[in-house]
Amino acid sequence: MKIPRAIGALIDSFCKLPGIGPKTAQRLTYYLLHVPQIELDNFSDAVSKLKKDTTLCTNCRNVGESDPCLICSDMLRDISTVLVVEQPLDVLAFEKTGKYKGLYHVLHGAISPLENIGPDEIYTSDLIERVKKDKKIKEIIIATNPTMEGEATAMYLTKELKKIEKNKLVITRLGMGIPTGADLEYADEVTLFQALQGRRDV
Amino acid sequence: MKIPRAIGALIDSFCKLPGIGPKTAQRLTYYLLHVPQIELDNFSDAVSKLKKDTTLCTNCRNVGESDPCLICSDMLRDISTVLVVEQPLDVLAFEKTGKYKGLYHVLHGAISPLENIGPDEIYTSDLIERVKKDKKIKEIIIATNPTMEGEATAMYLTKELKKIEKNKLVITRLGMGIPTGADLEYADEVTLFQALQGRRDV
Repeated sequence: MKIPRAIGALIDSFCKLPGIGPKTAQRLTYYLLHVPQIELDNFSDAVSKLKKDTTLCTNCRNVGESDPCLICSDMLRDISTVLVVEQPLDVLAFEKTGKYKGLYHVLHGAISPLENIGPDEIYTSDLIERVKKDKKIKEIIIATNPTMEGEATAMYLTKELKKIEKNKLVITRLGMGIPTGADLEYADEVTLFQALQGRRDV
Repeated sequence: MKIPRAIGALIDSFCKLPGIGPKTAQRLTYYLLHVPQIELDNFSDAVSKLKKDTTLCTNCRNVGESDPCLICSDMLRDISTVLVVEQPLDVLAFEKTGKYKGLYHVLHGAISPLENIGPDEIYTSDLIERVKKDKKIKEIIIATNPTMEGEATAMYLTKELKKIEKNKLVITRLGMGIPTGADLEYADEVTLFQALQGRRDV
């Protein structure tokens, strides 16, 4: 195959991204050949500066421009509640609802024994220390994903957080059940069972 | 929404790529936050060098590292045949078969009146000039895509090529019909009709 080196290099880089196979990588690369150099330079800049121009907040471990991040330094937020999520993207998802006014804690992963990721590989101890030190925290909402790894992480965190001697620390989990707009007919058994268990008075 | 500027810039750049929507762009960007800086630098380099380190071959207009390109300067290839394609990726597709030994001509597009792309916006005149000048060319295989635009381009090229006063210049099109591995039951009418028209003695 006679692919020029510059093209091969970019195809390889695209291939390393999740969900992008060799065919898509080829298509993206050849598309970029028709794009003005100024746009390529912008793209190239954005890639190289991504990590240099961002930082992890020492308080909540979210990705931000400043430390502490904009959410942690926002005086209007409810500092008594901390929502624990796996990824920075989960923070965005909750922020989009516009309904959550508390703080966050980003674990940057979930416990997964199969991939050799234990509690020390993600920011669990940071959360424990933060709850121990910050006397104003009254509620921890654990919002890990409803997967095997997320459940394992939630169980571990619940166990460790309960060890902390603190008055009235409430630990909660997200409500489970039928998502809005879903069709009951196609809901799986586990979801239906959880919807039954989580039923509420009206 | 409190997205850091560096992250927003990369999401925007990914969004401009074909087939990548805002959700995928977000996912790719946040994935890159976990990647070592050296890999980001390689990616960034590959993007900015893509056009600087490649050039269009003045003979066939294919994208290559040198001019003339590796295919045009290959002494073992059959210089009497020229296969006309729309995009450099089409050259790759034919090269992968390993069966075609002639040269190529890349148009970099197809005639599309709806998008204001006429014969002069793509490399059609280069092909006509090339065929006029190069006395060794005996056959032109037109391999544009079987779309409206590709058909219009093929018709235009056939008309213009037939005007050239040259002994025994053969103009051919790719065979049309059932692709290997397809199911006759699901083939559309046009394809079946073309398969009937293109039937061969056995």
